[in-house]
Amino acid sequence: MDALTELSYALDTFYFLISGALVMWMAAGFAMLEAGLVRAKNTAEILTKNVALFAIACIMYMLMGYNIMYPGDAVNSWWPGISFLLGDDNTVEAVVAGGEDAPYYSSMADFFFQVVFVATAMSIVSGAVAERMKLWSFLAFAVVMTGFIYPLQGYWKWGGGFLDAAGFQDFAGSGVVHLCGAAAALAGVILLGARKGKYGPNGEVRAIPGANMPLATLGMFILWLGWFGFNGGSELKISDVGEANAVAAVFVNTNMAAAGGVVAALLTARMVFGKADLTMALNGALAGLVSITAEPLAPSALAATFIGVVGGVIVVFSIITLDKLRLDDPVGAISVHGMVGIWGLLAVPLTNSDATFVAQVTGLVVILTWTFAASFLAWMVLKSTMGIRVSEEEEYQGCDIGECGLEAYPEFTGSHGSGL
Amino acid sequence: MDALTELSYALDTFYFLISGALVMWMAAGFAMLEAGLVRAKNTAEILTKNVALFAIACIMYMLMGYNIMYPGDAVNSWWPGISFLLGDDNTVEAVVAGGEDAPYYSSMADFFFQVVFVATAMSIVSGAVAERMKLWSFLAFAVVMTGFIYPLQGYWKWGGGFLDAAGFQDFAGSGVVHLCGAAAALAGVILLGARKGKYGPNGEVRAIPGANMPLATLGMFILWLGWFGFNGGSELKISDVGEANAVAAVFVNTNMAAAGGVVAALLTARMVFGKADLTMALNGALAGLVSITAEPLAPSALAATFIGVVGGVIVVFSIITLDKLRLDDPVGAISVHGMVGIWGLLAVPLTNSDATFVAQVTGLVVILTWTFAASFLAWMVLKSTMGIRVSEEEEYQGCDIGECGLEAYPEFTGSHGSGL
Amino acid sequence: MDALTELSYALDTFYFLISGALVMWMAAGFAMLEAGLVRAKNTAEILTKNVALFAIACIMYMLMGYNIMYPGDAVNSWWPGISFLLGDDNTVEAVVAGGEDAPYYSSMADFFFQVVFVATAMSIVSGAVAERMKLWSFLAFAVVMTGFIYPLQGYWKWGGGFLDAAGFQDFAGSGVVHLCGAAAALAGVILLGARKGKYGPNGEVRAIPGANMPLATLGMFILWLGWFGFNGGSELKISDVGEANAVAAVFVNTNMAAAGGVVAALLTARMVFGKADLTMALNGALAGLVSITAEPLAPSALAATFIGVVGGVIVVFSIITLDKLRLDDPVGAISVHGMVGIWGLLAVPLTNSDATFVAQVTGLVVILTWTFAASFLAWMVLKSTMGIRVSEEEEYQGCDIGECGLEAYPEFTGSHGSGL
Repeated sequence: MDALTELSYALDTFYFLISGALVMWMAAGFAMLEAGLVRAKNTAEILTKNVALFAIACIMYMLMGYNIMYPGDAVNSWWPGISFLLGDDNTVEAVVAGGEDAPYYSSMADFFFQVVFVATAMSIVSGAVAERMKLWSFLAFAVVMTGFIYPLQGYWKWGGGFLDAAGFQDFAGSGVVHLCGAAAALAGVILLGARKGKYGPNGEVRAIPGANMPLATLGMFILWLGWFGFNGGSELKISDVGEANAVAAVFVNTNMAAAGGVVAALLTARMVFGKADLTMALNGALAGLVSITAEPLAPSALAATFIGVVGGVIVVFSIITLDKLRLDDPVGAISVHGMVGIWGLLAVPLTNSDATFVAQVTGLVVILTWTFAASFLAWMVLKSTMGIRVSEEEEYQGCDIGECGLEAYPEFTGSHGSGL
Repeated sequence: MDALTELSYALDTFYFLISGALVMWMAAGFAMLEAGLVRAKNTAEILTKNVALFAIACIMYMLMGYNIMYPGDAVNSWWPGISFLLGDDNTVEAVVAGGEDAPYYSSMADFFFQVVFVATAMSIVSGAVAERMKLWSFLAFAVVMTGFIYPLQGYWKWGGGFLDAAGFQDFAGSGVVHLCGAAAALAGVILLGARKGKYGPNGEVRAIPGANMPLATLGMFILWLGWFGFNGGSELKISDVGEANAVAAVFVNTNMAAAGGVVAALLTARMVFGKADLTMALNGALAGLVSITAEPLAPSALAATFIGVVGGVIVVFSIITLDKLRLDDPVGAISVHGMVGIWGLLAVPLTNSDATFVAQVTGLVVILTWTFAASFLAWMVLKSTMGIRVSEEEEYQGCDIGECGLEAYPEFTGSHGSGL
Repeated sequence: MDALTELSYALDTFYFLISGALVMWMAAGFAMLEAGLVRAKNTAEILTKNVALFAIACIMYMLMGYNIMYPGDAVNSWWPGISFLLGDDNTVEAVVAGGEDAPYYSSMADFFFQVVFVATAMSIVSGAVAERMKLWSFLAFAVVMTGFIYPLQGYWKWGGGFLDAAGFQDFAGSGVVHLCGAAAALAGVILLGARKGKYGPNGEVRAIPGANMPLATLGMFILWLGWFGFNGGSELKISDVGEANAVAAVFVNTNMAAAGGVVAALLTARMVFGKADLTMALNGALAGLVSITAEPLAPSALAATFIGVVGGVIVVFSIITLDKLRLDDPVGAISVHGMVGIWGLLAVPLTNSDATFVAQVTGLVVILTWTFAASFLAWMVLKSTMGIRVSEEEEYQGCDIGECGLEAYPEFTGSHGSGL
């Protein structure tokens, strides 16, 4: 039945496109989350970074990244070979021919879905280096990250490279997307140093409150919504009973893990700080989501909730620990996406019998090492050429005036350029 | 044609999942609406409540609520029996077997759609008790409400209980969701009392303006969008011509009722207050949406608009009346979801010949009585144990500092903890 | 296979409804964008306009506009004849009868998709006349615009009128929607005059910064997301391989053009102003989106990027030029939707061999002339009856107090009614 095959192709394509649109929406989520968690004087600059990095990610991934990550002809399982631009979409003949290799959804829809993932990885970086990194250096790094660093490790797993062959399991990218983004962020944070005034001379840690909590909360909700596309779309097919059930299970588990993360982080923060810390609840939701991303299909709803609970606990202690190490991450991105991403990868064997602990450790070590090393090198080159940190004067005054020439809230903050 | 049946199952499942994602998004809508309508000093706390209640609703409904509302084996039409956790999803064999009872969409997708509804009901409560209720008492109530109070009355109608048998019609939940949420809120508001300063000693009502109108407007738009999933998904099937037309009619009517509500509330407010009151326009939109929720399929687009118009007029006078009764509802939730929910239920017989006025009144009295009584009891227990109201000092200073340990807008409000 | 035909109908209907929901969401995008780009004292009023115009557009288009734009029986290719209300939806018999003219999706879904387009056109106007136009006059204009001016020119192209017969190509409405909205806005701006203080006596242009940049950025992201429905839905069918590929190509090209617009506008602004101007980045994204709207299917992803790049450059210089002409457009709507809309129409022949330069110019001249002239007349009538501009006193104090009786941010702006 050719018409039935065509209709099935249309449904799977539509499912991909809607999933991709939801992931694209996550760009708004990161922008709002980060804008809410920085100070007013650095808000326009972080917004500009988020808008621009999404655009750069789309362009670089179209020009290079997609073909690196999903090459037509790979040199070997470590090196994809590099080709450029997107090819033609599938013909009707190829689709209705049937057989195992027949395409069952539009390759353009596949590109659309993949391109919004690379932007997610890059969005993770912008939060960690907020309030002190030069805008144009950041964008230069985005070019390298989205055009090369991310796609190469993506190839190793999702493009059929050696990590895939080694049995490494990462359904929707706790490692390939979230740990990768966090590793790049960590390299940047180390080279950049902490914000002025964050750490006192006697080891004390000073809280620097974000300017706009509703905005941060909105960002979290956007990310939660977008994650249904992120994980749900990663099943890659919906058009029969088994696949439809699988996508539904992924939706349920994604939601339950986020719920578990909220409750766990809120209670943990209550015990540690004595208050119902909203920012921890937000990070708890995101931690739950990152936790389940490596394996959102195999667990029961109850198991998914527990996986999220563990993520929610980890994120609170990770944020505290990073501050003790004087690694200044204004939005907690390295904890949420890195530390919890590692938990997500290690949790896979608990519910998926195809996964092994050894393969998971291999995968996370490779992704972490490659991304950290390549990013460190890229940041180093930028530091020694353009420079990566704004001047002390500009940091004090706020990046908005210096980098963007405007203020985010010109009427709300009493005096311009107030310190802290 | 098994493959066709499978594809149809996939489409209906996808339609459920997308509808559910849109309803989940309403959680963000309530959070933004409520955060915009309270004062700055209570904003972080209302955000925390909204994030946490959604998480709690998901967990409690998974653990208990879903099986209460849709029991495998019911004791009788008043009492479902209580079982736990979700079962397995449908097998391919069961789906392709055909026949009237064959499942036509994933039961996990059904759970996902239902779980976001219970969160909606609970979100209604948070707004009405804002700016003076203790956070942890509120969350304790959320556990009871989403695990038991809501699911039991849900069972009576949607689970096939005695209200369903009595011919009570409630398509998407003007009663089961909105009136239920409003009744729980009313019980809380009565026991909690009004905010300090809201009502003067000589009967005067003082306006306490919300801190952030764009946020409230965003919340309204999010809810409008989410309502397409709320009502559109409640048709429960889309995979043939009749069902597809029905879903389309529901989308159109939902949209038209909201539009009617906006225009009616804006004009009513203009006549009563002499100004184009934005908050009334927002509540008018929501009133239009609540109005049509009990029967979004039967009316013509024109009739749907009129149903929304009536809702938009009701909401303005209801808000004024509740203030006269000194029932302090900072966001108008009891008016929007309760008073207008009743109108929605009573309007069903106007366009749906299967509905009777008697059955509608029966349904609304049962839902209102049960939810109010059970909630009143739960709030009473909380009041006599944990306490439900913050201290006068904390109310004056704002709940944010006391409950959450942070401020929502630390740089925008001149001095911390200003009264008003 | 009737069941297959029905399922195909269901998928196409669902695709329409989801696309329509995404376009409806653009109403929130315009509201947030405009609210972020005006001053605090005019924010509640612009929000009220945006909420109300959407409601009015829905009602007027249901009552009149839809039947003007898509008439059952047209008088001739210039004049549709006027009928009222929506008809019945398609019967199963008509659908399964097959043949070229058999309906393949719900006509109610078609109305839903179309009705959100007219709201988009009207949203464009509200930004351009912000901060000085009377609220009720604006809403009166919305009645005429959405009930008659927009639908008539829409009939000429999409309803099968003379512009369609002339070979004018406008896939999703660079002309029919965006240029139309911009032309109506231009007429209003000319009659209204500039905001007090915008232009100095010696030709100097004073920047009047918007109050809330995160809000404006959120608005842009909402519009970007909604545009996938706007352009993606305009393919009008998804249910076979060719159509599914086409929708996917439209998604990719829409995304790439927006990305190109961001990068181009950011670099252009860097060169012209020396800073990474966030508002230009936002307008660049929108310019990219408007550019590709006339033809999002034919270009390759690379060509789409370039089309967006040109749009991004145009918008910066257009905004500068309009200020030189003392046409005060607070949000840049005339530049983004008008100037770039023209570019979008003229770019069609570059990649679509069915389009001719002559037909494109004909179309844009007709749309521009008709909309400008009819709008100018409507604004003139309003000016000489209700008046269209608020008093100087009210403009100084802000429209919020005068028109809406409340403030958007009562706690954030130090003193009420501060000038600027």
